[in-house]
Amino acid sequence: MINSLLAMTKNMHTTVSDIRGHVGEEVELKGWCYNFRSSGKIFFLQFRDGSGTVQVVYSKAELPPDQWDLLDQLRLESSVIVSGVVKAEPRSPSGFELTGTFFQPVQIAEEGYPIGKKEHGPDFLLDHRHLWLRAESQWAVMRVRDRIITSTFEWFHENSFVKFDTPILTPTSCEGTTDLFEMDYFAEEGQAASKAYLAQSGQLYLEAGIMSLGRAFDFGPVFRAEKSKTRRHLTEFWMMDAEAAFVEHEGNMAIQEALICRIVEDVLKHCQAELKVLGRDTAPLQKVKAPFVHLTHKDAIVKLRELGSDIGEMDDLGADDETLLTQQYDKPIFLERYPAVVKAFYMKRDPQDETRVLNNDLLASEGYGEIIGGSQREDDYETLMKRIAEHNLDPKPFDWYLDLRRYGSVPHSGFGYGLERIVAWTCGLHHVRETIPFPRMVNRITP
Amino acid sequence: MINSLLAMTKNMHTTVSDIRGHVGEEVELKGWCYNFRSSGKIFFLQFRDGSGTVQVVYSKAELPPDQWDLLDQLRLESSVIVSGVVKAEPRSPSGFELTGTFFQPVQIAEEGYPIGKKEHGPDFLLDHRHLWLRAESQWAVMRVRDRIITSTFEWFHENSFVKFDTPILTPTSCEGTTDLFEMDYFAEEGQAASKAYLAQSGQLYLEAGIMSLGRAFDFGPVFRAEKSKTRRHLTEFWMMDAEAAFVEHEGNMAIQEALICRIVEDVLKHCQAELKVLGRDTAPLQKVKAPFVHLTHKDAIVKLRELGSDIGEMDDLGADDETLLTQQYDKPIFLERYPAVVKAFYMKRDPQDETRVLNNDLLASEGYGEIIGGSQREDDYETLMKRIAEHNLDPKPFDWYLDLRRYGSVPHSGFGYGLERIVAWTCGLHHVRETIPFPRMVNRITP
Repeated sequence: MINSLLAMTKNMHTTVSDIRGHVGEEVELKGWCYNFRSSGKIFFLQFRDGSGTVQVVYSKAELPPDQWDLLDQLRLESSVIVSGVVKAEPRSPSGFELTGTFFQPVQIAEEGYPIGKKEHGPDFLLDHRHLWLRAESQWAVMRVRDRIITSTFEWFHENSFVKFDTPILTPTSCEGTTDLFEMDYFAEEGQAASKAYLAQSGQLYLEAGIMSLGRAFDFGPVFRAEKSKTRRHLTEFWMMDAEAAFVEHEGNMAIQEALICRIVEDVLKHCQAELKVLGRDTAPLQKVKAPFVHLTHKDAIVKLRELGSDIGEMDDLGADDETLLTQQYDKPIFLERYPAVVKAFYMKRDPQDETRVLNNDLLASEGYGEIIGGSQREDDYETLMKRIAEHNLDPKPFDWYLDLRRYGSVPHSGFGYGLERIVAWTCGLHHVRETIPFPRMVNRITP
Repeated sequence: MINSLLAMTKNMHTTVSDIRGHVGEEVELKGWCYNFRSSGKIFFLQFRDGSGTVQVVYSKAELPPDQWDLLDQLRLESSVIVSGVVKAEPRSPSGFELTGTFFQPVQIAEEGYPIGKKEHGPDFLLDHRHLWLRAESQWAVMRVRDRIITSTFEWFHENSFVKFDTPILTPTSCEGTTDLFEMDYFAEEGQAASKAYLAQSGQLYLEAGIMSLGRAFDFGPVFRAEKSKTRRHLTEFWMMDAEAAFVEHEGNMAIQEALICRIVEDVLKHCQAELKVLGRDTAPLQKVKAPFVHLTHKDAIVKLRELGSDIGEMDDLGADDETLLTQQYDKPIFLERYPAVVKAFYMKRDPQDETRVLNNDLLASEGYGEIIGGSQREDDYETLMKRIAEHNLDPKPFDWYLDLRRYGSVPHSGFGYGLERIVAWTCGLHHVRETIPFPRMVNRITP
């Protein structure tokens, strides 16, 4: 491949992911010492380079004595250059092993690498997030995250959605929520600084985008200044919002279903090694295929009460309710047509029941709960004005948004997914804090 | 295609981008009226749907009278459903035209669509950004932007880089810069709120990422609270940062060159229609091929002085200097090995001249100037400590970053590109304000 980075950068070393094609050949690898043990005459080096992990077996009898002496000084997480002959090794997780022919440390790590093989508490690990990322489990999570992002981009582009980067700095709290981070923006001459708020969603801006582009998605960080400390919340997280013109409620769910199926299919196909590292049972993920379960909010309430929940008829579902419900099915669940009173002003009402909206949540299986929220949007100017009044919102900041209904309004729908929740689900993780490189929570903004 | 959105959503209308395959057939399209004119007996409708633009020609003799009457009520930017028979039309920009058979308005736009065919000033257009996005020129820019993003993702994934989302909320000003947006973060119980700052670059975090993943990139919004009002600055813009282990200065530039060549090649290949809309002369872009020009900072200063600049020997280049320099070549220019005094503490010194660093800027051709900044990073612990002291920075917040040099340090390099500047260059735009959906500038945070 002419674009090959290896050729271009004249770094002619191989990577662990490439050794499959070099059985019987001598290769050079550059990376880190993940672990090692020595029997006095044989030295086993667990080598990692970011593309994977492989064992290099050195024999004292075969290695030049000065190199053998350097092996003696090795410490965990030292950076090293190794060479060896590739051989198939069915007992190894990678299927291969190297018979070592050369060893050279790049930098011997300081003594006392903080993260050992023993158990550490979450606070300790998060304090050392910059090093914890090197643990095989965290490496695997970051690679699955990358796969989910990649599949999302691929699927949207195959289906004519254009990436449309909505702003983070916004002048008002569009949805009337209170959990916003606020800051000073620039002052006009002779005036006090204006305020800016960090966006919680790009949806309203994306609606402007599709009136030009037809279909669009954005994918970026959003911010919630929520004080809640749960295993499903971060103060900074990555959200994917998608919106499409001339798509109504049913079509909106069809898009979500196809996207989620593609993501799970790709993770199963491309991340086998990573899921194995994480000990993820893939059987439940294999079942994530269309058609998903559909339940109206009304039917879900009946079912939840049968299952012992004390949820009220017009209540939103809590995390416990979601978990309870997903345990009844082995596929994701579309929860549709919520009471309008618990939902945002911009959602279109159900023509069959004006107290409900044409929305859906999508609950991931195995108790993971909500990963997507979406709805058809109200496209009628007068009705939208009425909703804004009903929600006690000031119409002034929505003037530009209302223009979308004044000039060429169309039926349209959209949804947003929380990346970290999808990573947690596919990786089988209990807490979202492991699903993002440097998590930000109520009590954590470092490192 | 089983994943086809059209099939899934049962919206069986065609799109303008698809009509090529339907010559001689009748198709239904859903979108907007971009423009129209009537001769009394023939009605010419410029129709757009986000995927492209096509002319629909209605004849009074052929259309049912009630539909002809509706055409009479049409206003700019109304949403419409049209049907017609596709015919090849060499005089049309799209190469096709529809002989109209059906017309139905979805919503007739209010009178007085704010953006007319006459010239508007930039402030007026930016105040109406949510509508201005529908102009063909802005549609084209957003599609080129999407293409650049897509090519970037594709190229990095083909070359084993993993996407690694670095945090926006950071606890300190890492590089000692002052142009940071500051806000209150959460307060610990009984204490004052801590401060958070919006990131200007993910580089330092990305360096932690590659010690796990080998190669990584991030791509997200960054923020600069600069008061400067220039055609090349926004307060919120999208930055792509890439970093690779075991890559040194020369390899770093090879990566940048290959990436930029790929981006320009893809834009020329996939965005012909968009570049035509923008009136972009593509001849200069055709010349963007490897190898690019390489100039040391020292040689660039000599050349600039010959050209009449009064730049000092150890000065950074200003925008005028960059423009002057790029006018001498028809390819992008790598400007290498700047004086250490004008550059950041983390850049590795040039072993041949300790007063200089192993860095590079990349200047786009045709006067567009800097689109990339990159460098090899200092990987030695003691040297890095010395640099932090020399730059009068507090080493405390860098403790985690220094860990990367304590434990398995490796030679590594990276760079960052400013998306909006690359969009401006490839599209041939004078000002970056048109290159992002909703630009944020010193005096603008709306709509």
